[in-house]
Amino acid sequence: MPPKNNRIIILDTTLRDGEQTPGVNLNLSEKLEIAKQLEALGVDIIEAGFPASSPGDFEAVRAVSQNVGCAVAAFCRCVGDDIQKGWQAVKYSKKPRLHVFIATSEIHMQYKLKMTKEEVLKRAIDGIRLAKSLCEDVEFSCEDASRSSPEFLYQVLERAIDAGATTVNIPDTVGYAMPDEFGALIGGIAKNVPNIAKAVISVHCHDDLGLAAANTLSAIGNGARQIETTVNGIGERAGNCSVEEVVMAIETRAKYFNISHGIDTTKIYRASKRVSKLTGVPISIYKSVVGRNAFAHESGIHQHGVMANPMTYEIMTPQSVGKTESTMVLGKLSGRHAFVDRLEAMGYSLSQDEIDNAFARFKDLADKKKNITDSDLDAIAGSIANIPEYYTLDNFQIQSGNKMHAMASVVLLHKNEKFMEAAIGDGPIDAAYNAIARIVGGEWPLKSYEIDAVTEGMDALGEVIVRILHDGELHIGRGISTDVIDASIRAYVNAINRAMAKLARKD
Amino acid sequence: MPPKNNRIIILDTTLRDGEQTPGVNLNLSEKLEIAKQLEALGVDIIEAGFPASSPGDFEAVRAVSQNVGCAVAAFCRCVGDDIQKGWQAVKYSKKPRLHVFIATSEIHMQYKLKMTKEEVLKRAIDGIRLAKSLCEDVEFSCEDASRSSPEFLYQVLERAIDAGATTVNIPDTVGYAMPDEFGALIGGIAKNVPNIAKAVISVHCHDDLGLAAANTLSAIGNGARQIETTVNGIGERAGNCSVEEVVMAIETRAKYFNISHGIDTTKIYRASKRVSKLTGVPISIYKSVVGRNAFAHESGIHQHGVMANPMTYEIMTPQSVGKTESTMVLGKLSGRHAFVDRLEAMGYSLSQDEIDNAFARFKDLADKKKNITDSDLDAIAGSIANIPEYYTLDNFQIQSGNKMHAMASVVLLHKNEKFMEAAIGDGPIDAAYNAIARIVGGEWPLKSYEIDAVTEGMDALGEVIVRILHDGELHIGRGISTDVIDASIRAYVNAINRAMAKLARKD
Repeated sequence: MPPKNNRIIILDTTLRDGEQTPGVNLNLSEKLEIAKQLEALGVDIIEAGFPASSPGDFEAVRAVSQNVGCAVAAFCRCVGDDIQKGWQAVKYSKKPRLHVFIATSEIHMQYKLKMTKEEVLKRAIDGIRLAKSLCEDVEFSCEDASRSSPEFLYQVLERAIDAGATTVNIPDTVGYAMPDEFGALIGGIAKNVPNIAKAVISVHCHDDLGLAAANTLSAIGNGARQIETTVNGIGERAGNCSVEEVVMAIETRAKYFNISHGIDTTKIYRASKRVSKLTGVPISIYKSVVGRNAFAHESGIHQHGVMANPMTYEIMTPQSVGKTESTMVLGKLSGRHAFVDRLEAMGYSLSQDEIDNAFARFKDLADKKKNITDSDLDAIAGSIANIPEYYTLDNFQIQSGNKMHAMASVVLLHKNEKFMEAAIGDGPIDAAYNAIARIVGGEWPLKSYEIDAVTEGMDALGEVIVRILHDGELHIGRGISTDVIDASIRAYVNAINRAMAKLARKD
Repeated sequence: MPPKNNRIIILDTTLRDGEQTPGVNLNLSEKLEIAKQLEALGVDIIEAGFPASSPGDFEAVRAVSQNVGCAVAAFCRCVGDDIQKGWQAVKYSKKPRLHVFIATSEIHMQYKLKMTKEEVLKRAIDGIRLAKSLCEDVEFSCEDASRSSPEFLYQVLERAIDAGATTVNIPDTVGYAMPDEFGALIGGIAKNVPNIAKAVISVHCHDDLGLAAANTLSAIGNGARQIETTVNGIGERAGNCSVEEVVMAIETRAKYFNISHGIDTTKIYRASKRVSKLTGVPISIYKSVVGRNAFAHESGIHQHGVMANPMTYEIMTPQSVGKTESTMVLGKLSGRHAFVDRLEAMGYSLSQDEIDNAFARFKDLADKKKNITDSDLDAIAGSIANIPEYYTLDNFQIQSGNKMHAMASVVLLHKNEKFMEAAIGDGPIDAAYNAIARIVGGEWPLKSYEIDAVTEGMDALGEVIVRILHDGELHIGRGISTDVIDASIRAYVNAINRAMAKLARKD
């Protein structure tokens, strides 16, 4: 089939498949910030969640629908209740889409669904019809399509399009396909499904064998005109196809692909950094396009070549993906007005309380650090945005050594009252955490602890990310400071505040 | 061309292209440990370095040549002195190889080499002839081959093979190629180079657009029978093709590829972890095959499927790549004998001094941590192995808080004498580092600081990795402890010891 047109539609599933990652647990304001970043990046459709899976996902799909101008999709099984809930959440969007799916591979039908082909076909068609009765834009996915019988796929897809699906998605759910083979599957669908001209063919690839980008590009070459991707390739297991890899391949090899897309590539780097910070998942230094080393040249031979002509070793420029030197924007003498202006220019919209809190953190930091960059501001705004402060750190003191017990005293503010406790521990951070748990009461065990330098240099700002278990759920917390102990304590208090905010919403 | 045979030769370049990474700086004993891991993994050829580039690379190639049974390659420009030095370093190997290269793309010839095609051709042939006069096994690479004129490549390769090259390598130096196109380039070489049957076609792919694995697999399908890879895909910029991705693709899709290799896949996970630890470069949780999430299932639907039948969402098992639960092996009551046995079983061979040092660390740790796992032992052995202890931590004390200056006192042992200093700082770690710098004297600025949880749980062992700048070079240091301050101090002292060891070798 000749491609219908030369523009690729990008459905971003960072908030659905990407959030479906062990340890990632975004709250509503974080999901909204990611949605805003995706809109600025220029994706066509944001898949904002799976509304029937949890009240949090429902709320997220509704809030994203109300707050972005691009299309929004809700993910649903081919089950009446899923589709109704999906519609209730996504109907606020200016361009709502219902995305329904069912598995079509032998192994999934036999072991997971325990259904025959005929039952699967009927369930699919019933689901699509219901979705269509609610929403004009319906996407249908054959889960595990790359391990499904092509003949069965042709049959299901023909019926799905007749029932109203306007996009048919072919996922390589388990990352099993080889590029040639996957391209041939897409080509076969384009050729053998009689009514395929009425729908857009979409693909959704996983990276289990490191082939998600290659499979997606191969599918484009064979007629796919929607691709499903995530920022930084986050997602189940080894993750999904990275939007930055596919888009930069299309850009770098423009003559080879001769196809357009809606992405503003200069927004890639910022979107990548924000998704990494908000999910708490660091980016490998070797990650294609967005990794720290992607544009670094180490060997003498390479450096010599780049000096003679950058194109000797660079096929794209750092500027083309928005990776520019962080400019010094603010310092000790900057006022509140300049601070708020800069945050707004960076896309933050904070309440008065949040601004007060952020400005106080900024002043603290400016005392310790000469140049405050956009990365610092991101860290500050990101760590305070929209989290009710049940407990606030007033002060702490620690004493420790390798031949003595560590001890810590901590003072927290709670409803304008001071609460003070001390504890010993296995190192000063553990001691401080024990003191905080004593103040708050209850069990707040630490499940993971990570630290990341946000900025470079001797006065680098460090960001600590902790995950604590409370009430059966993991709660992420972030803290930043030039002092690792301070950042660690702030992260722990932040995680407790998040857990309490979540409990409060449940009441 | 029909493939010559059904076995793929794997040349591993972790120690050459992988070490050519900003921030990675392995010492000789670390390179030897990686070489041993590669030999156990079953690679056919270890490219151990670029002897003419530095005395450290020369020593590494010589030492690896003397210590492994598999083939060893030395990387050389087509320059007489490079090739002579390469041979002096690699001649100790049971199966030595000289790997000579020159660029063949217009952009490289014009801007970097400033040579005509004829000059490049002559330089290549002269280099190959010289190499052949020293060594039977000669590999020749056309740098930037994927952007070279195919006709020029055919011509160069024919002459190269006539001059004695037994392997001809086609690098996608800048990660520019698309899988179809790269496969076609390899197919074209197989068809159009008249004497190609006398050589093995090799490929060397980079991951700038996320396509290194796909390009490598496409080349195999078109006749390549050697592939160049690194563990974890480390290397220049976005890195090289990952050995684990290509090998597991060949394994998982055995019928599709119908090709064999020498890799023991159950050694993949350990090699990956050790390379990550020794280079100080963390592995993304989403890294295909070896990432923490590669076999994790988050969504309810996936978990349900995996319980019904793992093959619903797993195309390979964690066991197949050697990712098995870390078994509890030792505890507080374990004796020195059990400790040494276990380290030997894990492949370490430590001197008496090193064992003493490691056993003391083990006893310290066992006081704080109930179950000591292989990961803990790796961290202990890895942090002490083969670094002369110019300075040893005796004890430290810190006092700090968010409303007071941080201060630290540190006592180091140096030639059996105690040296004590105190300092203030921006946080307790900075204070301790300042105190240490006072004891040692000179400038030891911190350039990067990372912390990583080695093991899980409340008493997790944290590993701190620092890089300090001294005498114009970056020196990495590692420290482990259940206390982050302790680990940080040990890492800094370790980096200073490494820098001093390097300076001592230069004297």
